[in-house]
Amino acid sequence: MIRNIKDSPLYPIVNPRNIAFFGASNRFTSMGTNQLSSLKSLGFEGEIYPIHPKEQQVQDFAAYKSVLDLPKIPDLAVMVLPTPIVPQVLEECGQKGIKSVVIVSGGFKEAGQEGEILEKKLVDIAHRYGMRFLGPNCIGVANPHHKYNITFLPFIGRPGFIGMASQSGSFITQMFDYLADLNLGFSTGISVGNEANIDLVDAMQYLAACPNTQVVALYIETIRRGRAFIETAQSIVPHKPIVALYVGGSEAGKRASLSHTGALAGPDKLYEGIFRQSGIIRAHSIIELFDFCWLLGSCPGPEGNNVVVQTHSGGPGASAADACDRAGLKLSPFSPETLEKLAPFVPHTGSVSNPVDLTFTKSPLEYFDNIPKILLEEPNADMLLIYFMAPKENVKRAMKSMGISENQINELTEKLFDDQAKAIEAVKKNYAKPLVGFSFHNRQNPMLQKLQHNNIPVLASPDRAARALAALVSYGRLRETIMQNKI
Amino acid sequence: MIRNIKDSPLYPIVNPRNIAFFGASNRFTSMGTNQLSSLKSLGFEGEIYPIHPKEQQVQDFAAYKSVLDLPKIPDLAVMVLPTPIVPQVLEECGQKGIKSVVIVSGGFKEAGQEGEILEKKLVDIAHRYGMRFLGPNCIGVANPHHKYNITFLPFIGRPGFIGMASQSGSFITQMFDYLADLNLGFSTGISVGNEANIDLVDAMQYLAACPNTQVVALYIETIRRGRAFIETAQSIVPHKPIVALYVGGSEAGKRASLSHTGALAGPDKLYEGIFRQSGIIRAHSIIELFDFCWLLGSCPGPEGNNVVVQTHSGGPGASAADACDRAGLKLSPFSPETLEKLAPFVPHTGSVSNPVDLTFTKSPLEYFDNIPKILLEEPNADMLLIYFMAPKENVKRAMKSMGISENQINELTEKLFDDQAKAIEAVKKNYAKPLVGFSFHNRQNPMLQKLQHNNIPVLASPDRAARALAALVSYGRLRETIMQNKI
Repeated sequence: MIRNIKDSPLYPIVNPRNIAFFGASNRFTSMGTNQLSSLKSLGFEGEIYPIHPKEQQVQDFAAYKSVLDLPKIPDLAVMVLPTPIVPQVLEECGQKGIKSVVIVSGGFKEAGQEGEILEKKLVDIAHRYGMRFLGPNCIGVANPHHKYNITFLPFIGRPGFIGMASQSGSFITQMFDYLADLNLGFSTGISVGNEANIDLVDAMQYLAACPNTQVVALYIETIRRGRAFIETAQSIVPHKPIVALYVGGSEAGKRASLSHTGALAGPDKLYEGIFRQSGIIRAHSIIELFDFCWLLGSCPGPEGNNVVVQTHSGGPGASAADACDRAGLKLSPFSPETLEKLAPFVPHTGSVSNPVDLTFTKSPLEYFDNIPKILLEEPNADMLLIYFMAPKENVKRAMKSMGISENQINELTEKLFDDQAKAIEAVKKNYAKPLVGFSFHNRQNPMLQKLQHNNIPVLASPDRAARALAALVSYGRLRETIMQNKI
Repeated sequence: MIRNIKDSPLYPIVNPRNIAFFGASNRFTSMGTNQLSSLKSLGFEGEIYPIHPKEQQVQDFAAYKSVLDLPKIPDLAVMVLPTPIVPQVLEECGQKGIKSVVIVSGGFKEAGQEGEILEKKLVDIAHRYGMRFLGPNCIGVANPHHKYNITFLPFIGRPGFIGMASQSGSFITQMFDYLADLNLGFSTGISVGNEANIDLVDAMQYLAACPNTQVVALYIETIRRGRAFIETAQSIVPHKPIVALYVGGSEAGKRASLSHTGALAGPDKLYEGIFRQSGIIRAHSIIELFDFCWLLGSCPGPEGNNVVVQTHSGGPGASAADACDRAGLKLSPFSPETLEKLAPFVPHTGSVSNPVDLTFTKSPLEYFDNIPKILLEEPNADMLLIYFMAPKENVKRAMKSMGISENQINELTEKLFDDQAKAIEAVKKNYAKPLVGFSFHNRQNPMLQKLQHNNIPVLASPDRAARALAALVSYGRLRETIMQNKI
C-alpha cells in the first residue's frame, strides 16, 4: 500500500496540471485528434501543448514542433504516434525532464517479436530517465472529477465512485454511456494496456488511495505479478471492496487475450484461487462487474444473508425468491411482530409470507413508505429487495379517463413519482441495511429515473439484483477472513 | 396435438368476435375498468357488452343489467368480479348459452380451503353447461394480431412472434414494454392462473397451432398434468421450439409459488428431467427466456456449434470468446481461404484469428458488408456473433469538427447508420446461418434502432448473446432426439 496518493506513479498521469500531447492534429478522423477533443470537451482546466511537426495551431491550441521547445516541463506527455517513432519521442521527453507518460500507440508486444523488442526499448529509455509510463497499447485515462479524459470517446455522465483498472480500454470508454444510463460513472478509469512499466498492481494501489473511489473494478486477462497482486489486494480489501472480471480462463478466452494485449492467460481455477486468497469478489461478465460495483459502492454492508422480497406481482416475486435462493441468500420467515404490523397493509388477495406480495396497495405511498419501513425493522431481515412495476402507462390512462388534461397528468404523475421516490429514499436513509430494487423497464421510465435520482439502485432483473446482493454478503465475509488472517 | 386451431378451447378466448364484460364500470381505478380500457385502446373490432347492475352506460358502451338481457349470445364472457358472486354469474352465463369464459377474479384455491371449495363450484358449473374457462386468478389474454387485450395494462409495441403461456400474469403484461423496446412482441400471451379448467397443456396446444407464433414461451411454477405435458411438448418440438422458465425448484421459490397460484412446486432436478424428456429448452430467468425466444423465432438453425466472433475492440472480443466457450460453443480456427480473403481488411494492429479483431476499418461499411460476408462463407462457421460499438457520439463529434452543421450531421449519421444496417441485413439474408450482435448501448442508441429495424437481433451483453446462440444449437439437438425417438 502507498501512504499517500501522490506517491503513486499514476498520480501525475491521472491528475496532470499540464500536458504535452503528441499525435493530435487538425485531421478529424485521427485517433489522437479525437483524444484531444475528449480532453477539451470535458473542460480540462490545465494547459495543453500539442506537439506537431508541421501545424502552428492544433484545435485552438498553439502547437510546438518539438517537446524540447516547450516553455515549461509538463506533468505529463500523451503519445498517440506511429509505432516506430515512439522510442525517439520518449527519449526527447526524457531529455526535457518529463517524468510521466501515457503511450497509447499499439504495435508492441501484442504484435509479435519485433514489437517486443521495441517495447523493451521503451522500458530501457524510461529507466534511464527515471520516467514512469502507462501502456503502450492502452486507451488512456479518464478522471472526470478532474475534468480530464484523454480517451478517444467523449466522457458522458457524471463523475462517479467506481475506480477501474482494465486490461481492455474498451471496457473503460465503451462503458461511459452504459454507466451514465444508470446514473453511475467512473471515479477514475485506467486502461493499463501492455503494462510495460506501470501495471495493474500500481493501478490498484492508486485506486485504493483515491478519495473518490468507493469500489475498485478490475478487468483482467492476465496477472503479471502474482505475489504483489495478492498482497496489494489483501491490503485494500479491509478498506475498499475489489471486484474482478477475468475472461482468460476458457480456451477461447486464452487465445483472444493473447492477441489482444500479448497476455498469456492461465487456467480458470488458478485465477479463482488467486481471487479467493486476495479477498476479491469475482464477477462473470462486464455487466455483473458493474452491478456488483453499483451496490458495493452505494449500500451499507448487510450483517447476514437474510433477504426480504417485497412485490405486488406473484411471478416477479417468485422469480426473485428463486434467484435469491440460487445466489445463496435466505428468505427467512417473519417475526410475529412484523406479521402483526404488516396485516393492515396486505389485502386479502395478498400474501404476508416472504416474499410479501401486496398485489395492490390502498394508498399509492404505502409501498414506498410504511411497508418497506416495517420490513427493514424485521430482525430477521439483513436486506430488502423490492420489485418496482413502475406503471407509467396505466397511471396516466386512469388520470386521462378522469378527464384530467395532458399537462396536468404530466404534472401529477411527476409529483406522484417524486413523492414515492423521496419517501423510499427517506426510509432507506434511516436503516443501515441495503435497500435495492428491480424492474423490467428501461432507464427512460420516469419512475425509474426518479428512483435513480434519489439513490435507490434498481437493477434490470431479479437475478442480477440477487447476485449483486450476494456480492455484498461476500464482501463482508471476504473482508473478515482477510482481517483475521492479518492478526 | 389438435388438428385445427379452432378445436382448441382457447380459440374463442383468444379470438372472440364479441364479449360480455363483467366488472368494468366508470370508476377509473378499478381493475375491470382498466381491463376494458385496454381492450378499447387497442382498437378491438368486435362488439363489447358491459354487464353492470346500475350503470346504463360503461365507457361509451351501452351496459346491460344482466347477461340474460343480451341481444345475442357472445363468444366470450370476461369476469373481473368480487370472489363470492363469481359462481352465480358463471351459472347465468351458462344459462345464456355462453361457452367460453375468462375468470380474472382471485380469492380461490390460492387463498386457502374456502377458496378451494368455491373453485370446485366453478368447475362443476362449467361442466354442467359444457363451458370452458381460463382462470380463476388470471390476468387475461392478449392477442395483438386480433387487436385484443383484456389485461389491465395497455398493450405497447407491435404484434410479434412469441406465444406465451404463463402461470404469472405479470410476465405477460409487465413485459409488454420490455419486449417493445427490443422491437419484439407477443403473438399471443395467455395468463393461465389457477388452471381450474383450461390449463398450461391446453395453452401449449393452442400456441402450437397458432400461425403467428414462431416460438412457445412458458413460465412455470408447477406442472399439473405431467404425462400430457411431456407428450404435448414432444409433439410440438419438431415444428416449433419451446422455451420454459421454471422457478419453483428452490425452497424459496416453492413457498412463493404456493401462495401465488396455489401450486405445489417440485424439486428442481425433476423439472430439469421433464424438460429434457420433453425437448424443451430451459431458461434460467425471464430475461433469458425472451433472449432465447428472440433468436429461436428469428434465426435459422445452425448446423453445428462453431461460432465466429467479429469485433473491433479487444476486451469485448475476449469476453465474447470466453462467454461462447462457457456456453458450450466452439471458436474454430479459419480455413486458409478465409484467412486470405480477410487479410486486406485487417489492419496491422488487428488480429485475423477467431475472434477477428479489426481494431478499425478503413471504410465505414466494411464491418457491415465484406467482413461478415467472408466470415459467413467460412465452412467452419455455423454462426456469427458481432460486437457493435455503435459510436454515435464520436461520429457526430468528428463531423462537427469538420464544420458540418447540426442538421446535416443528423442527416448524415442517419444515412450512415441506415446504410450500415441495410448492408448487414442484406448479408444476413443471403446465408442460412444465424447472425447476431451484441452491444452495451441502450435501445435508444440510433445505430441499434436501425439494426433492430433491419431485423438484426442485438443482445445487451456477450454472455446473453452466447447463451441465446447456444439455445439455437440446443434446439437443433433436442428436436433431432425427439424425432428419432418417434420413429
